[in-house]
Amino acid sequence: MAVGETRFPEMPEIEGLRLGATMAGIKKPGRRDLVVIEITEGARVAGAFTRNAFCAAPVTVAREHLSACTARGEAPRYLVVNTGNANAGTGEAGLHDARATCAELGGLVGVGAERVLPFSTGVIGEPLPMDRLLAGLPGAVQALDDGSHAWQAAGEGILTTDTRAKGASVTLALGDETVTINGIAKGSGMIRPDMATMLAFVATDAAIEPSLLDQLLREAVERSFNCITVDSDTSTNDACMLIATGRGVSVVDGEALTRFREGLLQVMTELAQAVIRDGEGATKFVTLQVDRARSRREALDVAFTVAHSPLVKTALYASDANWGRILAAVGRAPVEDFDVNRVTIDLGEVRLVENGGRASGYTEEAGSAVMAREEIDIRIALGRGEQGATVWTSDLSHEYVTINADYRS
Amino acid sequence: MAVGETRFPEMPEIEGLRLGATMAGIKKPGRRDLVVIEITEGARVAGAFTRNAFCAAPVTVAREHLSACTARGEAPRYLVVNTGNANAGTGEAGLHDARATCAELGGLVGVGAERVLPFSTGVIGEPLPMDRLLAGLPGAVQALDDGSHAWQAAGEGILTTDTRAKGASVTLALGDETVTINGIAKGSGMIRPDMATMLAFVATDAAIEPSLLDQLLREAVERSFNCITVDSDTSTNDACMLIATGRGVSVVDGEALTRFREGLLQVMTELAQAVIRDGEGATKFVTLQVDRARSRREALDVAFTVAHSPLVKTALYASDANWGRILAAVGRAPVEDFDVNRVTIDLGEVRLVENGGRASGYTEEAGSAVMAREEIDIRIALGRGEQGATVWTSDLSHEYVTINADYRS
Repeated sequence: MAVGETRFPEMPEIEGLRLGATMAGIKKPGRRDLVVIEITEGARVAGAFTRNAFCAAPVTVAREHLSACTARGEAPRYLVVNTGNANAGTGEAGLHDARATCAELGGLVGVGAERVLPFSTGVIGEPLPMDRLLAGLPGAVQALDDGSHAWQAAGEGILTTDTRAKGASVTLALGDETVTINGIAKGSGMIRPDMATMLAFVATDAAIEPSLLDQLLREAVERSFNCITVDSDTSTNDACMLIATGRGVSVVDGEALTRFREGLLQVMTELAQAVIRDGEGATKFVTLQVDRARSRREALDVAFTVAHSPLVKTALYASDANWGRILAAVGRAPVEDFDVNRVTIDLGEVRLVENGGRASGYTEEAGSAVMAREEIDIRIALGRGEQGATVWTSDLSHEYVTINADYRS
Repeated sequence: MAVGETRFPEMPEIEGLRLGATMAGIKKPGRRDLVVIEITEGARVAGAFTRNAFCAAPVTVAREHLSACTARGEAPRYLVVNTGNANAGTGEAGLHDARATCAELGGLVGVGAERVLPFSTGVIGEPLPMDRLLAGLPGAVQALDDGSHAWQAAGEGILTTDTRAKGASVTLALGDETVTINGIAKGSGMIRPDMATMLAFVATDAAIEPSLLDQLLREAVERSFNCITVDSDTSTNDACMLIATGRGVSVVDGEALTRFREGLLQVMTELAQAVIRDGEGATKFVTLQVDRARSRREALDVAFTVAHSPLVKTALYASDANWGRILAAVGRAPVEDFDVNRVTIDLGEVRLVENGGRASGYTEEAGSAVMAREEIDIRIALGRGEQGATVWTSDLSHEYVTINADYRS
């Protein structure tokens, strides 16, 4: 199941970046499951990784290799991504496998192992099938291309329980020149990113210095991937990479930086929302906007408390305008000195709650009409300050239980 | 659905306390839905209430009346409990209805309204049907009795989506005398108590001074009702009352206090566990024991992170020994400087995780054999200190989604 239609967009070429996908048979035959991304010499690469303490072996190795490159003033040249196996909970053997993958690809393409970053997604706790993975690398390298079809093939080659590939692209006119930002992402369950979603790769042809690139990535992650949740479960393998090949316009400050920042946030928000629309068992796409909070943290706390409430999520699934459950979830959010008489809750254009209880003009018919929609907006105003936050989530359906009771992920 | 068999126990008389239940037709005809509890003059009463900021009108009024009694050095004489309607999210009108209920019962039995405490449970946001509720009060008063059947009738008269009445009783021999502690509770969904579960009423014939009674209640709640979760949703109506009629032995300190404290914890733990066994859609009863933590708070944080994980809960439902999901949930718990290489996770008698990954001796067969059971123990040792905590929870089943997608609660 998934909410709405999403077509994989036409992706313009990013000069200095090529992608190759192949079928290595890592988990099952006949599907793309191994992707190599080639980055030109002289590019800049920033990364954000999961905060899960049980982080996967490839996350540990990717962090190490990225630091090693940075210390030498250079950037990674290759990313290698497999689906079907997360290489998580695999201890020392898993670290060895991740490093061996980098060494093998490095040997094939003529760079040191440390200039290759590994990424894995799929089942936790099984050893990586190294024979099939290594045997697939030459095919992925051979497939390297910068056309839109290569982006789509790579988007498909990183999926697990996702039902569709997720891509987003913007092209910005900066003066006489243009800058392109392309991104692909995967994720459907175990989605409560804490730095970045399961896996996302975003690239631009702009030239951006490392510290600014890092700052831009962190800002955009904070307002996109860190604002979505399917099921409150943070993955062991989350990673989001931002690549600036430097072949195009230089982005340093002023209008160009403002425009680039907006464009990057747009690409990453589209990808984050695509993850929610494809959330496991999702039948609704829900936007939770909390404002008039004392701080952004407080607004996020309220939004995530509502977004994680199984009772709110099952009511959304049932298209039941059960505002009492929303009110109860808001009421248990970790907010100090909370005066609920100042809270208002709106469902689409219908006011649900004011003055500590059901809004006087509310009718069940009006509430039900909004809840019947596939895309639902819930706005909660706390009456405490001027800060706000927006979080996107899905509902809790029978199919979510079926997927997760049947699928060994 | 519910886990295991639970018979309502034989409840000895508590001298100085009577219960009466009746069918007032508050939500639907033909079921007990209105309960009155009569407490002798000279008793002591302690209460713990929800911390949900949107607390229900009866919670506000019960708190006010309890404070007013305490200020005058006396205790409440009557509790009145209805199911079928939570009188929550009902604003000023709800407060008026709760006060009117107390005044009406007070008039019937000849005490001031402030010596009556109101409790409600059921659907949120509908006005209390005052005509039927008030019309039912004389019948409930007429039914007042101290026999075991009166306890059972009261236990039935407070249920909502529960499938069975929940009672527990212990009798302690203190020297030549005995002390009895009886309790009833209700709760099945919206269960993540934060002070106390939905509704619990515990009574003893012991004589205990108010400040000690209050302390004993808080200690026992902290280790019983505050250690259970079905779905992470804290109710607007949670309340737990402890009544000491004072007709029996005096409990002040020493051995008697130690024994009483243990007995009280036993009754409240049995009631809390009965709530989980009857959790909405529950097919498993899960004990999560976290030890070797730096603090009890840290142990509770890890236990609740695992207990609330939808992926862990669906794996439990599927009897799938998916230890990777438990590991991922432990890894995202809010623990500082977390060295996962020191963590061990055991499922029943089977070691799942050690040294940051799957335990070397682990086999899928051994794990599956434990997961097939109806009662499952998960023990997580953090390797950081000497503190621990135990939390009880249920699984996440199709029936949970059905109940909460269909039932307007």
